[in-house]
Amino acid sequence: MGSNELNFEGWVCPMPLRDYPNIILGHGGGGKLSAELVEHLFLPAFRNEQLEGLGDAAVFNINGARLAMSTDSFVVRPLFFPGGNIGELAVNGTVNDIAMSGATPLYLSAGFIIEEGLPLETLGAIVTSMAAAAQKAGVRLITGDTKVVDKGHGDGVYINTSGVGVIPEGVHIGPHRAQPGDVVILSGTIGDHGMAVMSVREGLAFETTIESDTAALNHLVAAMLAVTNDIHVLRDPTRGGVASTLNEIAQSSQVGIVLDERKLPVKTAVRSACELLGMDPLFVANEGKLLAIVPAAAAEAVLAAMQAHPLGQEAAVIGQVVSQHPGMLVAKTGIGATRVVAMQIGEQLPRIC
Amino acid sequence: MGSNELNFEGWVCPMPLRDYPNIILGHGGGGKLSAELVEHLFLPAFRNEQLEGLGDAAVFNINGARLAMSTDSFVVRPLFFPGGNIGELAVNGTVNDIAMSGATPLYLSAGFIIEEGLPLETLGAIVTSMAAAAQKAGVRLITGDTKVVDKGHGDGVYINTSGVGVIPEGVHIGPHRAQPGDVVILSGTIGDHGMAVMSVREGLAFETTIESDTAALNHLVAAMLAVTNDIHVLRDPTRGGVASTLNEIAQSSQVGIVLDERKLPVKTAVRSACELLGMDPLFVANEGKLLAIVPAAAAEAVLAAMQAHPLGQEAAVIGQVVSQHPGMLVAKTGIGATRVVAMQIGEQLPRIC
Repeated sequence: MGSNELNFEGWVCPMPLRDYPNIILGHGGGGKLSAELVEHLFLPAFRNEQLEGLGDAAVFNINGARLAMSTDSFVVRPLFFPGGNIGELAVNGTVNDIAMSGATPLYLSAGFIIEEGLPLETLGAIVTSMAAAAQKAGVRLITGDTKVVDKGHGDGVYINTSGVGVIPEGVHIGPHRAQPGDVVILSGTIGDHGMAVMSVREGLAFETTIESDTAALNHLVAAMLAVTNDIHVLRDPTRGGVASTLNEIAQSSQVGIVLDERKLPVKTAVRSACELLGMDPLFVANEGKLLAIVPAAAAEAVLAAMQAHPLGQEAAVIGQVVSQHPGMLVAKTGIGATRVVAMQIGEQLPRIC
Repeated sequence: MGSNELNFEGWVCPMPLRDYPNIILGHGGGGKLSAELVEHLFLPAFRNEQLEGLGDAAVFNINGARLAMSTDSFVVRPLFFPGGNIGELAVNGTVNDIAMSGATPLYLSAGFIIEEGLPLETLGAIVTSMAAAAQKAGVRLITGDTKVVDKGHGDGVYINTSGVGVIPEGVHIGPHRAQPGDVVILSGTIGDHGMAVMSVREGLAFETTIESDTAALNHLVAAMLAVTNDIHVLRDPTRGGVASTLNEIAQSSQVGIVLDERKLPVKTAVRSACELLGMDPLFVANEGKLLAIVPAAAAEAVLAAMQAHPLGQEAAVIGQVVSQHPGMLVAKTGIGATRVVAMQIGEQLPRIC
């Protein structure tokens, strides 16, 4: 067996939903359990072509315009963490989900579920920072809703944001469009957001404070689309990190993806924190990074456009799309070996977005 | 002073937000506290023309089409109640908010915040009923998100739905469009939803079970618009009931509204439950009723169209819009007196939608 071949004997199927009679934290972790919930519970109930696209945003047509719509709920604890808070995370998160379809995000809604007793000052700070994030991203928050739940039945505040945007003509981006020969580009360092939140929660102190990378990526996407429409897939690797996102793309496109681990940019403090907590940065959430899968011919131009943008300065080619092992992600490790990077069952990090 | 005149001396201003350092349940009740939160906290932060419309849905233009967008979170306890459950409530609620702008609702998103330990069977039942409600309303649920929070930090499940629809040409409906001379029409009995939930929670038993009126009103609205575009205001009186909704319209349009209490349809069981619990059905939530404010000339045709629809069989004219006492709702009581029906500070009924 050659060094690039893998032995898939002994692989086990993901456990079917029925083996878990109750919801567990892992169902929200962005791993296999989350995928099973979608596949066995949500998809069969709501089956329609838009939902089955399984992109971060759904696409539909109005008067000849293609609109992208997305929703995301944010339940992060603590509400404020180094580099950000739940408010800007909620705005940036949905802006990014829309942007990953190639759309220009335009309008957002915000639904607040507030726990009785939350200081109004805290809510005010969160809302102020949402407004600043919306302005920076160039989107408008146009409708909202507030519910209050009894003390002890929330975590201060949960925020849902939903939004719509318009996809420019000639742009066709989706998780099923990766093709053998394509190149995988990552926009910057991984694991910052997840480890920022985790460090605060675990009371870890490092010489450098790890800050969340929360940022709106729509302007970066616009800069990329300005050099070519020929981008096949865009995804922001949030819950479940780069590894889960690439696994999902491999499955949606029925291609293999080979990742070169040595090319993954990871900050020293993030690497240290991961080692301390026994975590793999590949599975840690990011909130201001994107993965782009582009034809090899377009890679250089896209990479240059990314590196010229403040949010893509450390952009790098981190892998290739191959026709072998469709549906699977494999990584070339630092010592030159090759390993399968499977999706995790549940989650490494609870509730960081 | 004539019997139709009122003495407004001694009215007090709503307390400013700063008098409450923390969020209390009343901030979610749809009364004055909710309004103050919007006016003093959300509006100043997000100020833009769409948000300031303060309708149930915000309106924006794409390629010449007018779209309506709305969001609502559902935190009702218990999750299942006579006549419905949180799932169909979540679908119908957002369908209705969109329909109240005159729009045809088309696409919904769903964001689930699930408490660890929720039986998958319960989630399955809720999702199945959401799918049925979506089908009945003729809308598609096209994108979703699931988060799981620790046991004890939720109430089984909270659901946010957001949605978009398209407003037909020639339709101009909004809370600021009520004019003196207009007629107020109500589509059916009031208080059913709120008292259905409250009865279960309080363990009340009546000869007749009170059932929630949860229903999608978009087809009823379409039937009304089929006879005339000349509808000024549509609103579904949910949280805060008919009284709060009419107060809001009176304020948005700067008109007075006179309500004839004798014409309000209230089921006997609902009336009994209200009396038992010391509640006024005017302030109790509905989830399948609408208020329409139309020019007197169109009233007869609109009423007939409503009465011909299964959800409007008991539709009735319940009041008039007047130029006197702008911003206020007054009611002619059963004994012929006139009273001011002010918005409540907080809420009568916690968390029923």
